[in-house]
Amino acid sequence: MKKPNIVILGAGYGGIMTAVKLQKSMGVNEANISLVNKHSYHYQTTWLHENAAGTLHHDRTRIQIKDVIDTSKVNFLQDTVISIQPDEKKVTLENTALVYDYLVIGLGFEAETFGIPGLKEHAFGIKNINSSRLIRQHIEYNFAKYNNLKNPGEELLNIVVGGAGFTGIEFVGELANRVPELCKEYDIPREKVRIINVEAAPTALPGFDPALVEYAMNSLESRGVEFKIGAMIKEVTPEGLVYEKDEQRVEIPSNTVVWAAGVRGNSIVEESGFEAMRGRVKVREDMRTPDYDDVFVVGDCALIINEETDRPYPPTAQMAIQQADTVAHNVKVLARGEKELEPFEPNLQGTVASLGHDDAIGVVFNDKKLFGWSASVMKKVIDNRYLLKLGGIGLLLKKGKFNIFR
Amino acid sequence: MKKPNIVILGAGYGGIMTAVKLQKSMGVNEANISLVNKHSYHYQTTWLHENAAGTLHHDRTRIQIKDVIDTSKVNFLQDTVISIQPDEKKVTLENTALVYDYLVIGLGFEAETFGIPGLKEHAFGIKNINSSRLIRQHIEYNFAKYNNLKNPGEELLNIVVGGAGFTGIEFVGELANRVPELCKEYDIPREKVRIINVEAAPTALPGFDPALVEYAMNSLESRGVEFKIGAMIKEVTPEGLVYEKDEQRVEIPSNTVVWAAGVRGNSIVEESGFEAMRGRVKVREDMRTPDYDDVFVVGDCALIINEETDRPYPPTAQMAIQQADTVAHNVKVLARGEKELEPFEPNLQGTVASLGHDDAIGVVFNDKKLFGWSASVMKKVIDNRYLLKLGGIGLLLKKGKFNIFR
Repeated sequence: MKKPNIVILGAGYGGIMTAVKLQKSMGVNEANISLVNKHSYHYQTTWLHENAAGTLHHDRTRIQIKDVIDTSKVNFLQDTVISIQPDEKKVTLENTALVYDYLVIGLGFEAETFGIPGLKEHAFGIKNINSSRLIRQHIEYNFAKYNNLKNPGEELLNIVVGGAGFTGIEFVGELANRVPELCKEYDIPREKVRIINVEAAPTALPGFDPALVEYAMNSLESRGVEFKIGAMIKEVTPEGLVYEKDEQRVEIPSNTVVWAAGVRGNSIVEESGFEAMRGRVKVREDMRTPDYDDVFVVGDCALIINEETDRPYPPTAQMAIQQADTVAHNVKVLARGEKELEPFEPNLQGTVASLGHDDAIGVVFNDKKLFGWSASVMKKVIDNRYLLKLGGIGLLLKKGKFNIFR
Repeated sequence: MKKPNIVILGAGYGGIMTAVKLQKSMGVNEANISLVNKHSYHYQTTWLHENAAGTLHHDRTRIQIKDVIDTSKVNFLQDTVISIQPDEKKVTLENTALVYDYLVIGLGFEAETFGIPGLKEHAFGIKNINSSRLIRQHIEYNFAKYNNLKNPGEELLNIVVGGAGFTGIEFVGELANRVPELCKEYDIPREKVRIINVEAAPTALPGFDPALVEYAMNSLESRGVEFKIGAMIKEVTPEGLVYEKDEQRVEIPSNTVVWAAGVRGNSIVEESGFEAMRGRVKVREDMRTPDYDDVFVVGDCALIINEETDRPYPPTAQMAIQQADTVAHNVKVLARGEKELEPFEPNLQGTVASLGHDDAIGVVFNDKKLFGWSASVMKKVIDNRYLLKLGGIGLLLKKGKFNIFR
């Protein structure tokens, strides 16, 4: 009997957890499992803002795939996905092509720029390890230039963050911790540096409890973050960012505009002919695409509607990790020729947004609110649980966050 | 009786050692001593290439002036010298003006670009703390960009150093140590990075013993440094550096051209009417200018002819430190109304050029040659002796180099 080919595209939260689950639950002789990823490493997308701010080194955020994948069970290909041909059950990679019996698409997100002129060209994005460490170095380079110029402009020291959602808030929280260190390193008075967070919605952290939002904004403002709430970004230029608020047009000169707002699914998904909304496939309850019984989607490219609110669940790491359980189970069932697929049921355990090293806000277990240090500890507990799940105690000890004391 | 005003311009090797010597040898009631410096700190110019390469933090290289100056004896002004009016015995600073009875000019060097087009505009210089840490960050920023581009150009990773004299050689030695670390940090294969040292003279380290030059070049080449010897720099552009060798014109694409060759004295000296050659005043043997009995020059702005060779002594840190002894003594003599000025007699104890952390070459005590680790230890001993002289055992322990073990 021919062993079925299982191909997993992408080693983000969803892809790598699917691979880890499959290698635990299936025997070597049951299937050929291939995992395709552009880099030799997996990374924790939820930690990238720390790498971008320079408060955490990117080697803490990334995990070599060979350190968590059993290569005797899973074949790892470092390659880039070009397209998928679902009718032919084929995947075209940059350097080769694969055929599959069962496919798991975990290709992750792309930035959604909402057509704002200049955003794509002139703003940085917290997208991956490469782009995050570039932001870190870009900020530092501008600080390093400052005292070399006779009349340095404020564009060197104005850091503008587009979006006060989850990522935007977490990023400015890290920046607020990092900037005093940079000022010391480059002999720059702290008051010369501005951290400006621009948000179009009428509130920061839309969807969060107003008491938590207030706590977060107070904490960040006390550390020097400026908020421009209800401010529409009109344009990003080589000179800075333009927004409009209360019918006033404001230009902020800045070399460093970081877009931390919209994300969408992967364009490869759309281009490969799957029916998708902004790169997201509205999956069946067993996580398969509507049209193909052999294709699963996990993570940012999967769209699942929350029936209580009639809106999509936000594509978080937590969701992707839980989906991977269902996807791995269902792939195994199909690969064994069985039929009982299980439905995905999200079990949301709360959300905690970090505001810097020892501060955070969050909602956990049935709307219990958390503030400050206890929330920041909870955040680290969540992060550490993932590492334990992914790579066991060894990985937890190597990459975990244990700096919980003030 | 009115106390004489002694004004020292610049807190480089010569200026700060003059101040330290004077505060030791003169009583509080004997004179008003003022030290003027642009920054709040003194720095070791001979260590800047390490800060520029990123192998030593600049806080190790700089020393807060208040940590070595007794402010009850010496009045420190953080200000910038604009001009000197020797006929009126006045100095104009950016924020104030001073009158003096005795003046010590220790204003340091400027880059000499020999009229090479584009050098001033497009090349970096290892001039001071600000410019050195900018080079460090510039190199790192280009490495950080590399993996963010679809088709990254070689200009990101080509580092071109103009000049294979003392500073140029020491700088490429540090770069050769630093580049492998940067490659690891940014996931770049080492063989993609080039360190290219371009020298117009027919040899690297002109003036050094050929056996030492050969040792240095072998050591550096084994760590990946490329030499272009007998190559005239024709131009520096935003795209890179152009040189001519054996009648061939060669362009090296590079974002990072560092000029480590010519230096000259300070243009303020010329502009203030002192007779000078490239910013250097040919001082009398008591270190005074030919025309003014109350003005001394120390360090890079002082020109002294070596009678044995009929050529100027190179303006080294060693020379400046020794000159400061003579200048401080002679200022004290004049300030006390005495007449016996002592002549400056250089006591050159050798020269050691570092080739990176644990390698060096040098000539010490009557032409004894040193190679490798023993030379690198000697280099650190010389550096540490200066710290001891400047600020005692406390400063030595704080800023000294003790990593002598391989």
